[in-house]
Amino acid sequence: MVETTASTESSEPDPQVAPGSPVGDLLALAQSPAELKKLSEQELGALCAQMRTFLLDTVQTTGGHLGSNLGVVELTVALHYVYNFERDRLILDVSHQCYPHKLLTGRMEGFAKLRRTGGLCGFTHPEESPFDLFHTGHAGTSISLGLGLSMAGARDETPPKVVSIIGDASLGAGVAFEAINHAGASGSPMLVILNDNEWSISKSVGALSKYLSKVRSNRLVQRAGQETKSLIQAIPLIGARVDRALDDLGEVMRHAVVPGHIFEEAGVRYVGPVDGHDVNGMVEVLRKVSELDGVVILHVLTEKGKGHPDGPNHPERVHAVKPKAPATQYKTEGTPVEPRAQGVAFTKAFADSLEVCANRDVRVHAITAGMPSGTGLVNFSERFPSRFHDTGITEQHAVAMAAGMAKGGLRPVVAIYSTFLQRGFDQCFQEVALQDLPVVLALDRAGPVGQDGPTHHGAYDIAYLRTLPNFILGAPRDATDMARMLDCMLAQNHPSAIRYPRGNTPHEECLPEAERLPMQAGKAEVLREGEDVVLWAYGSMVSVALEVAATWNQAGVAVGVVDARFAKPLDEGLLEEHLRSYAHVVTLEAHQRMGGFGSAVLEAASRAPWTEGIPQARVKVLGLPDRFLEHKTSVDEQLAEAGLDAGRIVRTVGNLLPAAKRGRLERLER
Amino acid sequence: MVETTASTESSEPDPQVAPGSPVGDLLALAQSPAELKKLSEQELGALCAQMRTFLLDTVQTTGGHLGSNLGVVELTVALHYVYNFERDRLILDVSHQCYPHKLLTGRMEGFAKLRRTGGLCGFTHPEESPFDLFHTGHAGTSISLGLGLSMAGARDETPPKVVSIIGDASLGAGVAFEAINHAGASGSPMLVILNDNEWSISKSVGALSKYLSKVRSNRLVQRAGQETKSLIQAIPLIGARVDRALDDLGEVMRHAVVPGHIFEEAGVRYVGPVDGHDVNGMVEVLRKVSELDGVVILHVLTEKGKGHPDGPNHPERVHAVKPKAPATQYKTEGTPVEPRAQGVAFTKAFADSLEVCANRDVRVHAITAGMPSGTGLVNFSERFPSRFHDTGITEQHAVAMAAGMAKGGLRPVVAIYSTFLQRGFDQCFQEVALQDLPVVLALDRAGPVGQDGPTHHGAYDIAYLRTLPNFILGAPRDATDMARMLDCMLAQNHPSAIRYPRGNTPHEECLPEAERLPMQAGKAEVLREGEDVVLWAYGSMVSVALEVAATWNQAGVAVGVVDARFAKPLDEGLLEEHLRSYAHVVTLEAHQRMGGFGSAVLEAASRAPWTEGIPQARVKVLGLPDRFLEHKTSVDEQLAEAGLDAGRIVRTVGNLLPAAKRGRLERLER
Repeated sequence: MVETTASTESSEPDPQVAPGSPVGDLLALAQSPAELKKLSEQELGALCAQMRTFLLDTVQTTGGHLGSNLGVVELTVALHYVYNFERDRLILDVSHQCYPHKLLTGRMEGFAKLRRTGGLCGFTHPEESPFDLFHTGHAGTSISLGLGLSMAGARDETPPKVVSIIGDASLGAGVAFEAINHAGASGSPMLVILNDNEWSISKSVGALSKYLSKVRSNRLVQRAGQETKSLIQAIPLIGARVDRALDDLGEVMRHAVVPGHIFEEAGVRYVGPVDGHDVNGMVEVLRKVSELDGVVILHVLTEKGKGHPDGPNHPERVHAVKPKAPATQYKTEGTPVEPRAQGVAFTKAFADSLEVCANRDVRVHAITAGMPSGTGLVNFSERFPSRFHDTGITEQHAVAMAAGMAKGGLRPVVAIYSTFLQRGFDQCFQEVALQDLPVVLALDRAGPVGQDGPTHHGAYDIAYLRTLPNFILGAPRDATDMARMLDCMLAQNHPSAIRYPRGNTPHEECLPEAERLPMQAGKAEVLREGEDVVLWAYGSMVSVALEVAATWNQAGVAVGVVDARFAKPLDEGLLEEHLRSYAHVVTLEAHQRMGGFGSAVLEAASRAPWTEGIPQARVKVLGLPDRFLEHKTSVDEQLAEAGLDAGRIVRTVGNLLPAAKRGRLERLER
Repeated sequence: MVETTASTESSEPDPQVAPGSPVGDLLALAQSPAELKKLSEQELGALCAQMRTFLLDTVQTTGGHLGSNLGVVELTVALHYVYNFERDRLILDVSHQCYPHKLLTGRMEGFAKLRRTGGLCGFTHPEESPFDLFHTGHAGTSISLGLGLSMAGARDETPPKVVSIIGDASLGAGVAFEAINHAGASGSPMLVILNDNEWSISKSVGALSKYLSKVRSNRLVQRAGQETKSLIQAIPLIGARVDRALDDLGEVMRHAVVPGHIFEEAGVRYVGPVDGHDVNGMVEVLRKVSELDGVVILHVLTEKGKGHPDGPNHPERVHAVKPKAPATQYKTEGTPVEPRAQGVAFTKAFADSLEVCANRDVRVHAITAGMPSGTGLVNFSERFPSRFHDTGITEQHAVAMAAGMAKGGLRPVVAIYSTFLQRGFDQCFQEVALQDLPVVLALDRAGPVGQDGPTHHGAYDIAYLRTLPNFILGAPRDATDMARMLDCMLAQNHPSAIRYPRGNTPHEECLPEAERLPMQAGKAEVLREGEDVVLWAYGSMVSVALEVAATWNQAGVAVGVVDARFAKPLDEGLLEEHLRSYAHVVTLEAHQRMGGFGSAVLEAASRAPWTEGIPQARVKVLGLPDRFLEHKTSVDEQLAEAGLDAGRIVRTVGNLLPAAKRGRLERLER
C-alpha cells in the first residue's frame, strides 16, 4: 500500500530542524483557509512557490513523504481557495499528501517535529484539526468515506460539498472500484479528484495505469495546458447528454472528445485531464465542477516530487526521504541512550534468505502488492524477473493469485506489511487456509512502526491468522533464524506466515547456528534455564528477553528464556513442562495482547493436564495494549510505552520473584 | 456475497428424494467428460434438456442453489465438450453453479443427498473430484486463482488452458477488478467467462451492472442470436488491432463495433455478448477463443432459472430453493429427535428490532452488501427506502461507506454475514475502529451454518474483531435481548458488532424482560447460581447452557449459568467473583476456540488478582475446533460434532464435578 519512510534503521536520529525554515510573506499570511481566501488569485502562484520552498527545506530535514506533497501544492491551495472546508468535506486518500493541507490549516509550526514524538502526524488526524476528518494510511477508501458523508449530508437543507482525493495507484485498489461502481449508480453528489502522477511508491502497475497513460498521451492532453478552460466549458454540455438514450453518433462523438469514457461507463461524469500545477486554472476548474450535480471525477495531472531536483527523473527517490544529519544519539523519554550495535534490517535478512531459496528452487516466486522497495524485493526482481510479481495496491488479489500459483505447483512467497495484509484477510481464509495451500506470507513491519503510527502498526496479524485452521505461524529472533525459518516454511505443505518487525536484527546472535535446535514447526528453543520465572518470547522480543535475563543474572537470579519460534502450532509439550517447573510463565510479543501469542499460551495452559495440589504456573501476558499507539520518533519508544522495553520487563519480572530474590537487583542497583 | 438457502429454520427436514429422479438416456451416457465427448454435437441440445429436467426434479426435492445452475447448463456442457479439464483448469467463482459440472464429472448419484450430511457439497470441493480445483463460496476470486494457475502453467511446454467463470454480480467485487487490472497488464493467457444473468441473489446493482445492461440492450445484441458466429469471426481481427498505436479512427470504429470496450481498456480482449443457451453456438465460440492468446473475456448472456416456470419473472425465487415435503423429524446421527418449539429466526428478530429503531431515530440507516433478503432487510427497504443501501457484493466499500455516514452524524447498521465481513476486515480496522466511529455491524450466520459448510461458517468474527481497539462485541441470547442489545449498541459512541446465528431464537425465553438486568456494555447477567461449575455462555449458546443446567438440576446438582452478553468489554468483575467462588468456569461459544470468547475469559483470568494459596477456578474453553467443519444437514449436527450440544456438555460438566455429584446423574439415567 503506502511506503513508510526509512525502513532499515530502528534507531531514528532526531534531526536538528533549523527553527528558521524559510517562511515566505504570503505563506505567513495564509495560516488558515479564511486568511488564504483574502489573497488575490494573482498571489496564489507565489504562495505555492513559497509553500514548496518551505516543504523542500523542512521535510528534507525532518524526513517524511516529500514527493507526493510537492505534487499537490497547487491542488490543495485551489481546493481551500474555492471550497469552505469548515462545512464542506475534504477526504485525502492515504493522506500522506496532507502537508500542504496542514500548512494551510494552522499547523506550520508543527513541521519542526513532523512525525516525531509529540509532533505533527504524517497523516491527517482528527485530533490535530477539525479540517482533518479521518486518520488514514491504507489506500483506496476515500471515495467510500466521501460517499457516506454525502449520504449523511443529504439531510441538510444545503448539504456540505464533499471532495475525495485519490491517487492513480490507489484507484487500482478493489475498494476504490467498489466505491465508484456504487457512487456512479447512487448519484449522490460528490467530487472525486483523481490525482494522477503515474506513481504509487514505485511506478504504478496494471492495466488501469496503462489506460491512464493513454489518456495522458492523447493529443487532447497535449493541448490541455492552455485549452483547459475551453475544454471544461464544453464538457458539462456533453456530460449532460450521457444520460440520454444511446445513439451511435453521440456515443462515437463522446469517445472522440472525452478521454475519460471508462469513468463515464461507470456512471460518473468525467472532467479532464487538467494541469495540476496551474493553480489559477485549478481554481477555475474547481469553481465549475463544484456547481455540477451527481458524481464528478476530475482528472488532475501532477508530477510527483515537483520542484525537487530529483523529482522529474526519480520520483521514487523523492517519495519518502530520510532525515538529514543523523545524530549520534536518539532519545527515549528524554534520556540519551547509546545506540546499540545492530545487525542487518529484518527486511534485508528476509530478502537475502528468499534469494537463496529462489536460487535453489525454481518453484519459489515472490509477490508484492505495490511495495517492491519496502519489502526489500528490488534485488530479487532484478535477479529473477520472471518469478517476481508486483500486483499493485491489491492485497486481496495478491493473496488469491498466490493461492492459484501454489495450486499449480509453485511455492509463492507474498511479502506484505502486516497491517496491509488485513486487506487480504478473506483471501487468507478462503483461498489459502481452506484449500490448505503452501503459500508463505512474509509479514514485514510486524509490531509498532514508529513514525507512521497506528495506521501502520502490525499489531493484529497473529490474532487474525491464528484463528484460521491450517496456518503455521512463526517469527525468527535473528537473521540466522530468518533463513532457517523461511526454509522450514517453504518445506511445509500448508499455509504459513513469518512475522518480523521494522528495525534491525540483533548484532550479537544467541547461539551459533550449529548449536541451535533444528527449525521445526511447533518446536520452541530453550535459550536459558531459570528458576522461578521463564520468559516465553516471540520473534523480535527474544533479544529483549535475553537482555532481561542478563540483567537478573548480574543479580544472581536465573530467569529462563524460551524462543517460542512458533505461535501456531505452539510447543505445548515444553509449555506443559514449564507450567510444572516454574512458578510464572511470562509471554512477550510485539502484538496486541488480545488474541495474540500470549492468548495461544493461555489457551494451551488451560488444556494442560493439571492435578489439584500441584502448583501451577501463572501465565502473564505482555504485549501491546488494547488501544492505538500514536506515532513516535522510534519503535523503541512505542515498545517502552507498552511496557515492552527491557527495563520495564526487568521490573515486571521482579514483581513475580520471591521477595528475597527481588531484593538482590535493588541492592545491585544501589 | 452469496445467499445460503432457507435461512429461517434451524431444523432441517431430511427430504424424501425419489431414488428414481428422471435420468435421460444421454445424461446416463455422459457421466464423465470423456464420455461426453463421444456424443455428437447434434445430441448436446437434448443432453442439456435432460440435465435441466434432472436438476429441476432433484434440487426442488433436496433444496439447493437452483437458479444459477439452470442458467449454466449449456455453458458447462460446451466447456467440457471443448476443453480437457483433466489437464486444463476450470475455476468456478463462488461455485454454487457447479451442479451441471458435478453431473458431468461422475457425481450424479450424490445429488440424492445434495448438501446433506455425508452427501455432495453444494460447492466445488477438491475432496470430491479432481475436476474441482478449489472449495469456494465467497465471490470474486476466480480470476485471481486462474491467473495464478496460468502463471504456474507457464513452466510447462504445453501449458494447460485456464478458464475462470465469474458472474456479473461477482465482477463488482473489488478483488475481481484488481485481478482483471493485473491480468490485463500481465498478458498471462487465460479465458474469463463473464456469466451475465443480471442477478446476484437479488437484482445486480451498481454502475457496472448498468453498463452491462447497456451492452445487452445494444442493437448488436438484438441480432446476437443468429449472428453470433459472424460477429465472433470478426472480432479476433479487430481485437488484434487493439494493441497497436492508437489512431482516432480505429478508436472510434472499435467503440462503434465492439460493445465491450470497457474491458478492452483494461487490457483484455473482449468477445461477446453471446447467447449462453445456444449450446452449439457456445461450442463454436469456445473453440475459437480457446485458440486466442493473452487474456480473453467471453461475455455470455444467460438466464437465471432458465427452464423453471418462475425463472423468467422471479429469478430471485429460484436462486435457492427449500426442500419439498418437510418431514416432521430431523436426524442427528441417525437418532430421530422431537423438533423443539422455536421462536422467530434470529435474522427476523434483528430485522424487526432494526425497524423499531429506525422508526424512532431518523439517523438509523441500513446497509447490505448484496444480501437484502438473506439479512432480512427486504421489509426495511420498503419501509425506509431512502435509508436503505444495497452496495452489491462489496463488503469493503459497505463498511467504509458506513464509516463515512457515521462521521456525518448517521447511525449506520451494516448487516452482513460473519464470514463475508472478513472481506471488510481492513475497513473495520482503519475506517471504523481507528476513527472510533459508531458503526453497528450486525453479523448474521455467526457460528456453523449447516448445509453451506466451511465457506459460510461464521467462525472467526470474535477473533478478528476483538483484537481491534474500540470495538464493543455482543451477542443476544434471544429475541427480547436482540432488541435491547441493538438499542444498546446504537446508543454507543463507539464501533460495535452483534453476532447471531443461522437458526431460530429460543421459544421459551429465560426471564421476562422486566426482570432482566439492564443491557449495558460490559455487563453480564447471571441466570442461575450454582456450586462447583459455572457456564459462561455467549449468545446462542446460552439456551444450550440452560438446558445443561436443567439436566443437572434433575440430578440435584446446581450448575451456574451466565449470559456473558459481551465478549468485549468482558464483565471482568463478575468473572473475578466466579473465579473465587467456583472450582471451574466453562466457556461456551459457537466460534473457533482460538482467539474467541473463551480466550477473552482466559486473558481476563490471567490478569485477575490472585493470592498464592487461595484456589482459583480453572477455565475450560468449549468452542469450534481448529479445523474446517464440513457441510452437514443441520447446524445442530455440526455443533454436536464440536462437542457443543447439550448432551456432550452435560458429560463435560460431569467430568469436572466432584465424583459424588457426578454419580448422581448416572444414577438418574439408570
